[in-house]
Order: sequence, then structure tokens, then C-alpha cells
Amino acid sequence: MNLFEKHEPTLSKAIEALHARTFYAAFPENPAPAVYGESADSDGKEKFHALLGKKFEELNQGDAQQWVGQEESPYTQDALGIMYPSIGVPLLVTRASTAFHVWRKVSVSDRAGILIESLERLKGRFFEIAYATMHTTGQGYMMAFQASGPHAADRALEAIAAGYEELLRFPFKALWDKPMGKFNIRLNKEWRAVPKGVSVVIGCSTFPTWNSVTGIYASLVTGNSVIVKPHPGAILPIAIFVSEIRKVLTENNLDPNICQLAADTFDKMITKELAEHPDVKLVDFTGNSAFGSYLEALPGKTIFTEKTGVNSVILDSVEDVDKVAANLAFSINLYSGQMCTAPQNFYIPEGGIKTPAGPVTFDDFARKLADNINSLVDNPKAGPFVLGAVQNKKTCDRITAVEKLPGKVWLKSRTFVNPMFKNARVATPVLLEVDASKKDIFSEELFGPIGLLIKTKNTDQSISLAKELAIRRGAISCGAYSTDASVREKIADEMALASTPVSFNLTGGIYMNQNAAFSDFHVTGGNPSGNASFTNPDYVNKRFTWVGHREPA
Amino acid sequence: MNLFEKHEPTLSKAIEALHARTFYAAFPENPAPAVYGESADSDGKEKFHALLGKKFEELNQGDAQQWVGQEESPYTQDALGIMYPSIGVPLLVTRASTAFHVWRKVSVSDRAGILIESLERLKGRFFEIAYATMHTTGQGYMMAFQASGPHAADRALEAIAAGYEELLRFPFKALWDKPMGKFNIRLNKEWRAVPKGVSVVIGCSTFPTWNSVTGIYASLVTGNSVIVKPHPGAILPIAIFVSEIRKVLTENNLDPNICQLAADTFDKMITKELAEHPDVKLVDFTGNSAFGSYLEALPGKTIFTEKTGVNSVILDSVEDVDKVAANLAFSINLYSGQMCTAPQNFYIPEGGIKTPAGPVTFDDFARKLADNINSLVDNPKAGPFVLGAVQNKKTCDRITAVEKLPGKVWLKSRTFVNPMFKNARVATPVLLEVDASKKDIFSEELFGPIGLLIKTKNTDQSISLAKELAIRRGAISCGAYSTDASVREKIADEMALASTPVSFNLTGGIYMNQNAAFSDFHVTGGNPSGNASFTNPDYVNKRFTWVGHREPA
Repeated sequence: MNLFEKHEPTLSKAIEALHARTFYAAFPENPAPAVYGESADSDGKEKFHALLGKKFEELNQGDAQQWVGQEESPYTQDALGIMYPSIGVPLLVTRASTAFHVWRKVSVSDRAGILIESLERLKGRFFEIAYATMHTTGQGYMMAFQASGPHAADRALEAIAAGYEELLRFPFKALWDKPMGKFNIRLNKEWRAVPKGVSVVIGCSTFPTWNSVTGIYASLVTGNSVIVKPHPGAILPIAIFVSEIRKVLTENNLDPNICQLAADTFDKMITKELAEHPDVKLVDFTGNSAFGSYLEALPGKTIFTEKTGVNSVILDSVEDVDKVAANLAFSINLYSGQMCTAPQNFYIPEGGIKTPAGPVTFDDFARKLADNINSLVDNPKAGPFVLGAVQNKKTCDRITAVEKLPGKVWLKSRTFVNPMFKNARVATPVLLEVDASKKDIFSEELFGPIGLLIKTKNTDQSISLAKELAIRRGAISCGAYSTDASVREKIADEMALASTPVSFNLTGGIYMNQNAAFSDFHVTGGNPSGNASFTNPDYVNKRFTWVGHREPA
Repeated sequence: MNLFEKHEPTLSKAIEALHARTFYAAFPENPAPAVYGESADSDGKEKFHALLGKKFEELNQGDAQQWVGQEESPYTQDALGIMYPSIGVPLLVTRASTAFHVWRKVSVSDRAGILIESLERLKGRFFEIAYATMHTTGQGYMMAFQASGPHAADRALEAIAAGYEELLRFPFKALWDKPMGKFNIRLNKEWRAVPKGVSVVIGCSTFPTWNSVTGIYASLVTGNSVIVKPHPGAILPIAIFVSEIRKVLTENNLDPNICQLAADTFDKMITKELAEHPDVKLVDFTGNSAFGSYLEALPGKTIFTEKTGVNSVILDSVEDVDKVAANLAFSINLYSGQMCTAPQNFYIPEGGIKTPAGPVTFDDFARKLADNINSLVDNPKAGPFVLGAVQNKKTCDRITAVEKLPGKVWLKSRTFVNPMFKNARVATPVLLEVDASKKDIFSEELFGPIGLLIKTKNTDQSISLAKELAIRRGAISCGAYSTDASVREKIADEMALASTPVSFNLTGGIYMNQNAAFSDFHVTGGNPSGNASFTNPDYVNKRFTWVGHREPA
């Protein structure tokens, strides 16, 4: 049985899920022993520890010109000491170009089979990837497992499914038979989905697999070769993915350089050299807006970006204000606000938030939000695991700067003790009150555990500001609370015009930060927070070109 | 019965055709009385003549700020004297923005119904449009009828079908129901296909409807409002399209400014002002590469271009060299080489073209091609009607310049008498021999009836040059002749990598210039001849954004 036949049921289910958009997960997100096996966690931890301080050899990328590695655990603030092969850009691209001409001739079905096989193999390494993710990104254990393992694998499968479907959207061949009266003109026509060439996927430091695998698998399924350029601070999780892809390629007698890892260092980043190389046709990027916009403007290339945005929460009216405050407190605490979907700007009317028991004033809500954040932080069984650690020291500096801004500080950032990692770099959220007139303060993305409580005239002004900032600065998520259907529709319509998805009235165990494969399009591509969306048809269609040839029959 | 119900069978057939890619035409291309009615031709001619020298009032675009019109017939070299309303860019865009918010709320089905109704109405005006096209573009009668009437309407229908299908690709709503062990999280989700806003479609002087209607109808079906900015030399044909669209909108109680005409003059073009307007989000353009590339680089806009390219013919081996020469002579004579798909560079090996009777030398083939061009030109029943007239005087200057280039002139351009229009601006093809080493001469697009006979070492060099130029300068079509299947596959593969469709071994009544709706993707979007393709999924998907909202169930 070939790999396509083996994985055809998975592929079919994934394509179905892509269109049903109801709940679907091919990889269980529950790390329980009953699901992944009794020793899976401890084995994974052991494997992770065995990698520390050594050369990461399993990529098997030929003679490395150098070995590099500067990763550091946000939990221990120690270097991981793992060294990755460093290969110069010209050689990487030459290898990728050679491999491209092999890979593009592999059938769509075989490509899909090989790629799904790599995900199946990775399933056995989810725990190892989880520890790798914790100790590069600072994510808590649960998020590190889910986001880098099953959720990333689901996103990868979604990209494979979307690509597979698009590539079979039109027939490979057709007879064109035109009646001309006394005779017919008959042409044999054929269409080829021609991949664009060498693809570069640039990773970020906070979600090294989740944000990269969609681009990697979307480019691969459509026949492009891929060079994965991870963030120098978070290489290991995606290096494991690349290793497994390379192994399956090799086993199938294909050039493993169809997918290469391009590790670099903070002092000598190769990203621009890679992106500007004339043979690189596709670039996927997750990261800051300035670099993303530079990439988007590169002529003659197809660029997919997820940049930054200013995410809003519009508070109009609620059933139960405490549940709302608890939900939002979790959202801002989760991974210390280091998610691209985390809320930043909380728009609260000066007249307060309407409730069945009368309005809750601005001050009351600010206090409730602060209290809820505190009680989660101070819950030793939850706080340290929800907040995790801070990936980048600059995030801590940003928090300090926010506390010095004009406006009442409702909650100061502080540290806490992580029972497992005494040396963890941690910071709890800061809450700053800002008047709606101080647009310069709240129109920047302030990455990290930073919440701005913006006092608006009324909900109309809240909507108008949230929409304006989404259009001007981008937004990836929006939370909104209203018990009034007409207000909800107004928010839905206005934020849709700003290409921003809205989560309404979330309480309990679901948060605006969360984003589900096969259902939620991640980033819409329609505002400055990014030009691409996981996984809409454009996300795969732009990676190849339909070319039709014809000849008399 | 509403318009959607009325036209649903047409829409269904069109969607089916889009995927079958076999022959399909919703609008008959045969202008015979038996098809379109006994008096259709004479009525159309009469209507066209009745428009000359007057204000074109039927757009009904409100109080025009001015009336402008500089069209001139290439057949009579006289001004048409038709005046169109001129409206300033700010007012055009304000009206389009207002209309956008009406149109985007009309259901996809209703939009499709209204748009197909407009095509049905236009069917009754195909002859009038044919005469309008002849006397603005210089096309011969048959091409003017087919390209501006039924073929354009088929392309428009194809865009409607593609847009309709994409907009229904994902559900409007779904229940997301995630099992969490002891309970389920249930979210009601909804997805909105949010149109991007105001769309500008910039027309060209040679194919004023065929090259514009795809953008117009693709933008309209996806919910954008459209401003049509025709070439000042070819307004009337598309003005008739816009009038019919506006009438159907008005009859359906919708703002007719959902589609506006923006006529301008050669001395005061408004194209840049329109394209750069911050409220304009989408631009479709057909025309020169410099302006197209300027548009493609406009930040924050979605741009669809068809620019220029260098189309090649690769001559390797043939069954019947005379049939090949006749076919290519027709291709270069057709509309005096003023088609974006017309051949320019003929690559002929120095060892000649292989035939069953032995090689035909370079010189022999050059002579045969010249002879075939001459006999078609000199056939009074065919020549004048195939060649038509030259739209732009600059094309005549270009021909003169080519004759002065270094290299043997195998055929000089000359004039001929058009029996119906003594004053027609005409020019027959020039054929110039160029050595393969003179790349600077043959790597530019030389728009018009200009053929370069390039002497190559062998077919491999021919392929290599055709591919290189397609990648560097763009190509929209390619002709290739080979009786060897492995050579054909090499050409198919190499030109596919240059995103160029190849027509193999065409002889008889089918030509490399021709391009069929529902079957041939026009321009692939993968080389510098343009970034868009009629009508692939990208062509409609890029005109709207998927935005998903969610709320607890």
C-alpha cells in the first residue's frame, strides 16, 4: 500500500472538515496517558533533555559549513546548547532548486501521502516537541503541547487538504470539441498546476511550529521546495518537524532537500539574503510589521505575512459581568499576552457596561478585571501554567514603559514564583486606563501582558475606534460583549469591513485567543495584520500557476 | 420569478463548463441572420450611426460636470464626435462608496441574477457594439462582433460563475461542537465574504470590452462597486455595457452607481488619480507594462494586470510545412498583429525545420511565410477583413522603425485598399530576420504586425530563448511545431515553468491567438505579462475577504 492509499481516509475527512467548518481534529489535543500512552510524556521529556548541549544531527543535511545555536530557555534563562547545521544561502538555494525539479514531478496524491505520513510520525514526538517549545518560547506545558503538536499538525493537515483540493479543481485533460457547422474543431487540452519554485518559511519566536507548518505544508503539497528559516531563539520544535519530513522523503527515494532547515544566529541573520535571492519565489513570514511590509514590497515574489495588530474588546452590555471579567482575565494572562490573538484594547463606555442589574461603571469593571487577573496569577495550581514565561526580555521592558505612560495604572505588572522553574522570566499583566482621545497611546501594538482600558463616550465610539485601528494598524481578533442583537450586528458588520473576526459574548472555557483548524480562518488577510489567511483558497492557490497547453486531437 | 430564478439554469451550466473546460458558449458567435435575427445587423449599424456626433445620454449618470469625447475611427480617420459625461474623481469615488454599501448587502444570488440579466440585454446590442468596436479599435467586422459581443459576454458569464462558486465555497453558518469530556463547547459560527470596496477597471484601446468585462463582472458579483475607466480612444463599446448594467440595477431599485463610467481625454487622463484614491481597493488593468508595474506596486491595493509580453513560435519539425506557414500567416495578419496573443518571435533552427520530405531551410520557410502573408493580404475577399485597421498611429511608426533594424527584411510592410473604407489606416506585416545572438532586438514587445524570424542553433536554443524571454519579459501565448513527442513534452514542461501556455501543431481554422472562455485560462499570472488570469479562482477570491464571527450557542 502506498502512502496515498494509506492516508486517503485522513485526507478525505480533512477536505470534508474544511468545508463543514464544524469541530474537527485529526490529532487529539489531550495529552493524557490514555490518549498518547503511559510513558509518552516522560519519554518525550527525556528525549528533549538528551538533545541539550549537542549537535542536532538528525536533519542529516550533508556537511554543514558551520554549527550554530543560541536558543535559551525562558524558564531557566540558560542556553540550550543545541547546535544546528548552518549552510550558506547560495548552497541552500541551489539544493532547493535541484530538489524542486524532483518534487514538482511527484504526483499530487503522492505528495499528499508523504506529507501526511510525516505528520503521523510527528504524532509520536509531540511530547518532545512540547518540551522543546516550552524551553524556547516560554509557553506553559499544556499550550506548548497543544499548539506545537496536535493543533499545528491539524493546521498542517488543513493546508495539505486545501492544496490537494485546489490542485484537483480543474481537469488534467479535456477534449475541446467545437462545432463549426460543417466540421468540428477538436483540441486535446491539458492543464498543469505549475509550482512557483523555491519557498522560504520564516518562523517566529513564540509559535515556532503552529505559525510555520501551514506555509511549509501548503508550499510542499503544491510542489514547491521549502527552506525553513526559524527564529534563532526557537529552532528546536520546527527542526524536529523538518527532520521527520526529510526522513519520509528519503525513505521514498526522494531528495530530502525538498525541505531544508536554515538555522542562523541573532548576530548574523540570513533572512533578507534568503528572501531577496532571485530563485526564491514564495515567502511565508510571521513577525513584526516593519519586516513583513518590507517583504510584501519585494517585487516579483509571492509573499504571505502574519504581522502585528491591535486587538480590541468592545464592552457594551453583559448578562453576567463577573463571568466576562473572568474570561477576559484568562485571555490576557494566557501565555502572558504573547499570542497574536490576545486582547489589548478594552473599550468601555464612560457610562459603564449595561447589565440586567444596572450599569457596571468603568471603575468597577477595571477593578473586577484586575481582581480576576490577580486571582488567576495567585492560584498556584493555575497561574504559573497559564502565564508561562516571557520569551523575550524586550517584552519586560515594554511593560515597564507602559507603566510610565500618562493614565491610571489599575494593575501593576509583577513577578511570581514558578514552582518548577525558580529562574523563569515572568511578568503578570499591567492594566492602564487611557482616555479615548489619547489615540497615539493605544494605536500601537504593545506585545505582551498589557491591557489598555479605554474610556469611550459610548459603544458607537468603541466600535468606531476598534474598526479604525483594525483598518489602520491591523487586528487579528476582536472580542465583543453585547446582549443587544442590533448592536451585535452593527459590530459584526463594521468589524467585517475591517476584515476582523469577532468573538461575541465568550464566557467559560473558550477564549477570543483561540483559533481552531478546519473552522476559524486565522488572520483574514484583509487588514494590515497580514496579507494571508490559514487556510483559505488563496493561501494555496497563490503557490502555483495554472498553465494550459493544447494540440489538435 | 426573480432574476436569479430566471438565470439559474444559465449559471449552473456556466459553473459546470468552468470545470469541464470542454467547448461551451452561452452566446452564439455566429452573426448570421438565422441566429440573431434578419435585421439585427442593419439595426445595429443604424443604431451605431445614430449615436455619432451626439451626447451619449443613456448612462444616465446624473449631472455631468462636463462632456468629453475624442474617439476616432481607424477606418475613416474621422472623429466619432460622441460625448460622454465627465465626472471628477472625488465625486465618482464618493458615489461608488455609497453604492458599495448598498450592493454588498445584496445576496450573492441576486447579484448573479442581475448581472446575467444585463448580459441577456446586451445580447440584443451585439451588432451595435460590433460597429462601435470596429470604429474605435480598427478590428474587422467579424472579430469586432465576436470579441466584443458573444466572446466578451461568455467571459463575463465565466467570471460571474467563478465568483458565485467561490462565494458559496464555505458555509454561511455552522455549529461548532467540541467535546471536552464532561461537557461540550458549542459555538455558532458564521462566515461573511466581505467585498473589498471600490473597484476600478481600466480598459485598453484594442479590446475595450473583452479585456474589461471580466474585471467588471468579477468585481460586481463579489459585491464591489465598479468604476469603469475606458481608454479615451475606445469608450463606446464598454459604455453600452455599462449602460445596460445601470439600467438593470435601476429597474431592481438599486443605486445605478454600483457601476459607473469614467470617461476621460488623452490630454487629461484620470487613471492615476483614480487608482491612487485611498478608497479604491481593487484595480484591473490592461495595457502597457510600465503603467501595469506602477499599479502592481501601489501599496495596500489588490491589482489585476494584463501587460505586454513577447510571444514565441518554436519551429522544430512539421508534417506539412505549407499548412503551418498558412496558419502562422493568418495569426500574424489577424487584426494586424494587434492582439496580445499574436506571435512575434519565430524561432527557426539554422539547420531548417524537419519534415517527412527532408528539412525546409530557414530561407525557404521565411519565403513561405512571406508568401502566405501576401496571398492573404491580396485576397480581396479576406485580407481587408482579417487585417482590419491600425488602432494607433504609433504602431505604424514602430513598423517603419523595425524595417530599419539590422537584419534582412523578408517582407516589407505596405498598405492595401479596404473596399469599404478608402481612408482606413492599414499596414501589413513586416518580417525581419534576426540572429539569435541579437537578443536586444527580439526581447522587446513590438506591438503590431511585426514578425521576427530568429535563426537559432537548434530547437534546444529556440526553447531556451522562448523560455528565458517569457520569464524575463512575459509571454501570453506560444506556438510550437514538433512531430516528436519528447520535444513537445520538453517544450510543454519548459514553457510551463515560464507560465506560458503552448498551442502545439496548429493548422487549419484554429490559431494560437484564439482563447476560449470556460476553457483557456487567459494570461497565467505567472510571468511578467500580467499577474492575473481569466478566470482562475484567484481572479475572484482576491476581490473579497472571508471573515468569521462566533458566539456561544
